[in-house]
Amino acid sequence: MKHLLLAASAAASLILPVAASEPAPIPSPGEIAAAAPASDWIAIAPSDLLVMDLAPDAKGKPRRVVIQLMPAPFSRGWIGNIRKLAAAHWWDGTSINRVQDNYVVQWGDATEKKPLPIGLATVPESEYQIEDRPAVMRIIETMHRNKVRIEELVRQQRRSGSPRIYAPEMRTKVDPYADLQGFAQGWPVAGSTGLWPIHCYGAVGVGRNLSPDTGSGAELYAVIGHAPRHLDRNIAVVGRVISGIEHLSSLPRGTEALGFYKTEAERMPIASIRIASELPAADQPQFEYLSTESDSFARYADARANRRDPFFIRPAGGADICNIPVPVRPVAAK
Amino acid sequence: MKHLLLAASAAASLILPVAASEPAPIPSPGEIAAAAPASDWIAIAPSDLLVMDLAPDAKGKPRRVVIQLMPAPFSRGWIGNIRKLAAAHWWDGTSINRVQDNYVVQWGDATEKKPLPIGLATVPESEYQIEDRPAVMRIIETMHRNKVRIEELVRQQRRSGSPRIYAPEMRTKVDPYADLQGFAQGWPVAGSTGLWPIHCYGAVGVGRNLSPDTGSGAELYAVIGHAPRHLDRNIAVVGRVISGIEHLSSLPRGTEALGFYKTEAERMPIASIRIASELPAADQPQFEYLSTESDSFARYADARANRRDPFFIRPAGGADICNIPVPVRPVAAK
Repeated sequence: MKHLLLAASAAASLILPVAASEPAPIPSPGEIAAAAPASDWIAIAPSDLLVMDLAPDAKGKPRRVVIQLMPAPFSRGWIGNIRKLAAAHWWDGTSINRVQDNYVVQWGDATEKKPLPIGLATVPESEYQIEDRPAVMRIIETMHRNKVRIEELVRQQRRSGSPRIYAPEMRTKVDPYADLQGFAQGWPVAGSTGLWPIHCYGAVGVGRNLSPDTGSGAELYAVIGHAPRHLDRNIAVVGRVISGIEHLSSLPRGTEALGFYKTEAERMPIASIRIASELPAADQPQFEYLSTESDSFARYADARANRRDPFFIRPAGGADICNIPVPVRPVAAK
Repeated sequence: MKHLLLAASAAASLILPVAASEPAPIPSPGEIAAAAPASDWIAIAPSDLLVMDLAPDAKGKPRRVVIQLMPAPFSRGWIGNIRKLAAAHWWDGTSINRVQDNYVVQWGDATEKKPLPIGLATVPESEYQIEDRPAVMRIIETMHRNKVRIEELVRQQRRSGSPRIYAPEMRTKVDPYADLQGFAQGWPVAGSTGLWPIHCYGAVGVGRNLSPDTGSGAELYAVIGHAPRHLDRNIAVVGRVISGIEHLSSLPRGTEALGFYKTEAERMPIASIRIASELPAADQPQFEYLSTESDSFARYADARANRRDPFFIRPAGGADICNIPVPVRPVAAK
């Protein structure tokens, strides 16, 4: 029964055996991404990767979590602080202190006494979204071009008239959380008058106390459940986990209110957090993402919204934006 | 920093200390549910609870997962099979064989050789949704009344003019996956010509091979990630985990394709699965859910879509249906 839920998997990129008589199966989203030309993949600069090394597991195996930081123009103030905290090795010896099921894993200084580095910015709530008109318009134009690319693809497929193809108008533009949403610069983005990054599975954000505090960046969390979109514009999104999230999502849930661990013994020690460019070259993780401005991504997004690979009998005809995760893959170190 | 993400928690039902001078804080969704009158809570019959007891944890602590089965008229064929499998104690000695991050935990017979009980139904794909007109219309009317209740509440709050209240028209009716969606009989439901149950976090479904196989019910999975709505109408939803999901969601992820465990040693043994009514009375879990037809649920749903409790500075003005989990709570055994 190993085929159970086969093509339903975002991760799956298996090729089913095809009898000579059958047409080739329609590729899954994973297969479409895997087949994208090298030119559609964009390398992520090591200076934009935050590398968190946890204590090794029970068998002594290393546990590394890699986080891609948000690109400009989003969340710059907090990301500047995060770079300073990493450069100061501030997180070394801190711990994961909270794991709340279907919500977040949170890390930082459990003692709440560790002094912060000098010179961290106090970031205002206005930074939760960007309102700089030229930047907003530039990104909205990119989002629009990418949406048009997907919709044109859907029309082409409808015209092609394959009986296995069922593609009603894409409904990914439908979002209960925003007037506008789509992909730009490799990230899901929402907006109305301004634009803001979205809390999807794996998103990394900045913990805070009650408003007007927006958090320094020293307390971070990663989403390990259904996208908590109600946090959008209420907390700063600063990145996303692109590798090793299973080291966070499979941790025991905390038993205190909000999933905080009750005892020191339950906390997961953080050996170190570094910007990848500070690591020895051989130890720098290398990743690339599928350009959201590419035709390959348009095909991938359409396939996520209209699954036609063999497992599926009824394509959804749409997808919420967090069900179209931007493909990211490791590349062999050069 | 224990307030971090405080009111953002679906689970939180803490009361913040209030200085004499301040107005009472606006309650969180959890607080609204906790304050609902007893008459708004509906007891779940033990005959509708599936109780899965896993092997105890490393410290010998029991690990129990409780699943509420879908009410009529949804998924009856598979649920009939599940009742037969539980009555036959068929799952005893089977195991959890697959844990795929941000997707599903799956259990059943890893050997794929265990004979099934006599008399299981072969359920057709048409059962993925209900199309019986009287039943569909009855449920749609209930969904509509519940939506009207929420929208009327939003209008009242807008009229009340509290400066802390910000309630644009509810956008929960917006769904990329269906023309129609809402709550009925305590469950989230979607539809267009027919109606079908929704894959939200914690949903339990029936694993299958490629169509036209729809699965017997012997292989089950639970959603442990972002709602995989693309599975709606492609696999049967038969229930939801209402207690103990952390025993599934925190399991180590499988390293084989699709998150299957590679070795027997990795699999999590299932001691037993029973319909609760078959257990000794003292061992029968007792749960109740907040009636989705109650004013309390309308207030809760509005609060989930428009967070105004102290942590939040900007209510979303909407929510996707899987971000409005129906409150379920244990009750002391009678």
